[in-house]
Amino acid sequence: MLPEIERPPGEFAARWLRFQERLQEHGIDGALLVQSADLVYFTGTFQDGHLYIPAQGTPRFMVRRDWASARADAALDDVVPIQSFSQLPGLIREAGYPVPRRLGLELDVLPVQTYFRYQKAFPGAELVDCSSLIKELRAVKTPYELTLLRDAGRRADAMFASLPGIIREGRTEVEMAGLFEAVARREGHQGLLRMRGLNAETFWGHLMTGVTATQAGFFDGATGGTGVGPEFRFGASFKKLARNEPVVVDYPGIFRGYIVDMTRIFVAGTLPETLQRAHRTALEIQNTLAAEIRPGKTTAEVYERARALADEAGLAAHFMGYDNPVRFVGHGVGLELNELPVLAPGRETRLEANMVIAVEPKFAFPGIGVVGIENTFVITGNGLERLTNYPDEIIELP
Amino acid sequence: MLPEIERPPGEFAARWLRFQERLQEHGIDGALLVQSADLVYFTGTFQDGHLYIPAQGTPRFMVRRDWASARADAALDDVVPIQSFSQLPGLIREAGYPVPRRLGLELDVLPVQTYFRYQKAFPGAELVDCSSLIKELRAVKTPYELTLLRDAGRRADAMFASLPGIIREGRTEVEMAGLFEAVARREGHQGLLRMRGLNAETFWGHLMTGVTATQAGFFDGATGGTGVGPEFRFGASFKKLARNEPVVVDYPGIFRGYIVDMTRIFVAGTLPETLQRAHRTALEIQNTLAAEIRPGKTTAEVYERARALADEAGLAAHFMGYDNPVRFVGHGVGLELNELPVLAPGRETRLEANMVIAVEPKFAFPGIGVVGIENTFVITGNGLERLTNYPDEIIELP
Repeated sequence: MLPEIERPPGEFAARWLRFQERLQEHGIDGALLVQSADLVYFTGTFQDGHLYIPAQGTPRFMVRRDWASARADAALDDVVPIQSFSQLPGLIREAGYPVPRRLGLELDVLPVQTYFRYQKAFPGAELVDCSSLIKELRAVKTPYELTLLRDAGRRADAMFASLPGIIREGRTEVEMAGLFEAVARREGHQGLLRMRGLNAETFWGHLMTGVTATQAGFFDGATGGTGVGPEFRFGASFKKLARNEPVVVDYPGIFRGYIVDMTRIFVAGTLPETLQRAHRTALEIQNTLAAEIRPGKTTAEVYERARALADEAGLAAHFMGYDNPVRFVGHGVGLELNELPVLAPGRETRLEANMVIAVEPKFAFPGIGVVGIENTFVITGNGLERLTNYPDEIIELP
Repeated sequence: MLPEIERPPGEFAARWLRFQERLQEHGIDGALLVQSADLVYFTGTFQDGHLYIPAQGTPRFMVRRDWASARADAALDDVVPIQSFSQLPGLIREAGYPVPRRLGLELDVLPVQTYFRYQKAFPGAELVDCSSLIKELRAVKTPYELTLLRDAGRRADAMFASLPGIIREGRTEVEMAGLFEAVARREGHQGLLRMRGLNAETFWGHLMTGVTATQAGFFDGATGGTGVGPEFRFGASFKKLARNEPVVVDYPGIFRGYIVDMTRIFVAGTLPETLQRAHRTALEIQNTLAAEIRPGKTTAEVYERARALADEAGLAAHFMGYDNPVRFVGHGVGLELNELPVLAPGRETRLEANMVIAVEPKFAFPGIGVVGIENTFVITGNGLERLTNYPDEIIELP
């Protein structure tokens, strides 16, 4: 069992209140939320149901199936069963709230068919998108969330410490990935990696050797992997580890719902000097950003700084992928892998204290492999606090 | 590497044609598909992009990022890059098709924000739901798909054969799950389990011991599991296996994208006679259905037959869950876990030859555990062809 980290009294009420302030600012009478990560954020658990958060007052969680478990797990008292969408207005009125005329929904993820059901259940109501309000709110972590993320960081470090015993010349990527995942699972890694959006298909993470890491694929990351077939080109494949080629291990640690993201490079033997140099450049970029990032900087400034350091090192063409580079050098993490902020060009989002970001400068060499680093940090008034502390250097194995 | 099973010439063209017949019947000019399983069905691979299937003619796959991999993997020639939704009408015209006035979309899964983007890209067009056309089409498998499913069945049997060496008194569920998953991964299991719909959060499968299997949770199955915490109440937990309690292993085998679903019961020691008897009833239900199911029967008839056999055995209250039973006894499988048909009451869908179904009669005993069986079958003119053949009986371990 993971040791208990108690929910502080008032934690969830404070989250509702901050969201309610935003609802009021936007003239939204209430929001009906259904998406798993948003439900975990506002209730502490996920069940199949609708959470109604009125612009003022206490939320009501209307659960389709296992409302007894929802009642036991959730950080709110008002949990009731529901069978159909047509009950929604009645259940909202019963809780003492007017039927919303302007209703917030998670339109970034809500399927169209479900949206039509809400239209039918609330005739005449204006259905508006409140997903960006939630995403902005969730980008800035509470002290309790930071406690959970620090704990996840320590556990992810322990996971990574098993890798030198697993990575071995001649083993396939899938064999090494399976052994690593078994360690993580035994230690309480949640398994499921939540990522926001249709088709945001992820599975554990990436363990790739040499050239397979350079395949881009559908996944919006610096590395993709070939997977075990064309039906799912992602992560580990049947390729065997050869001597002197980089093993990229890019695996989130997920504990109590919270994600820290990290990447390390291993090698059976030694890497060519070109790759070693590129790895040193990645560390230099990371460490420069870690020293310079402050609340108030924009995400574009951070990206451009990283990009400029890659340019200076003569590695611009390799930065964050080769044929299909991604245009970011880091991203928010929390209950989902792809949270705000995104450290990307053209985004003028100002960084704030208590945002949590994975910084991941990487370099791809076509036909050879990928090197680089990724760690998860909290933005503080004095720079970055690092949550993942396994050594950054390339780990050379026999 | 999984041995190659060559795509028969004309396989994908035949799929397009059958879909196009349905588009024409419904007066739809063409469909734009984006969902991963649908893309695998119509192209043989998944990439981040839009597949345009005109009511007549050859599809065009417009890929956002890694169109080179899409071109290499896909079973169609016309693969082109795309950057933004606004290019869609132009790229469709360029392929020689008129801009659709009645456009089919996957409205069961498409997020509302994406729908609005299509509305903007195709002003004046009528956007209609074509998801049920696709789901009905995909429910009846082609001979090539059946070849892939038979192969997945054999590989799932081999996976399950590792369990007697893994299940052991005193081990936690997560430890046993991790070891089992490592075997599956090494042998080429795809990992990612596709399930259609928002929040259809699955992770590998369920390995549960005794009472944890009776927790319902958000997941729409006869068993849920407690998971490692309230953030994801699903599957394996930290509970240790005790003597004489049932271990439920409900894991899909997924190879080359295709899913077979199976469940077996293990025990360290012996199960109480009540559970042994319930397990025999589950096998009797399975075997009766396997002998009686024919094309032309309805899904409701099959469910009611199973239900009646459970009633006769005095197990009605335990059938398919206890406090929160599910109202089905089986479901289609293929590229997704929750395909058509659903063997459920009130559904008058007629079964057809070459549908593939997982039949899973199970009994839950509150405070004790779950027993039952699940196997995957092809519907043929002469009853069911069984794809998963690991022994059905309770496996007693020392």
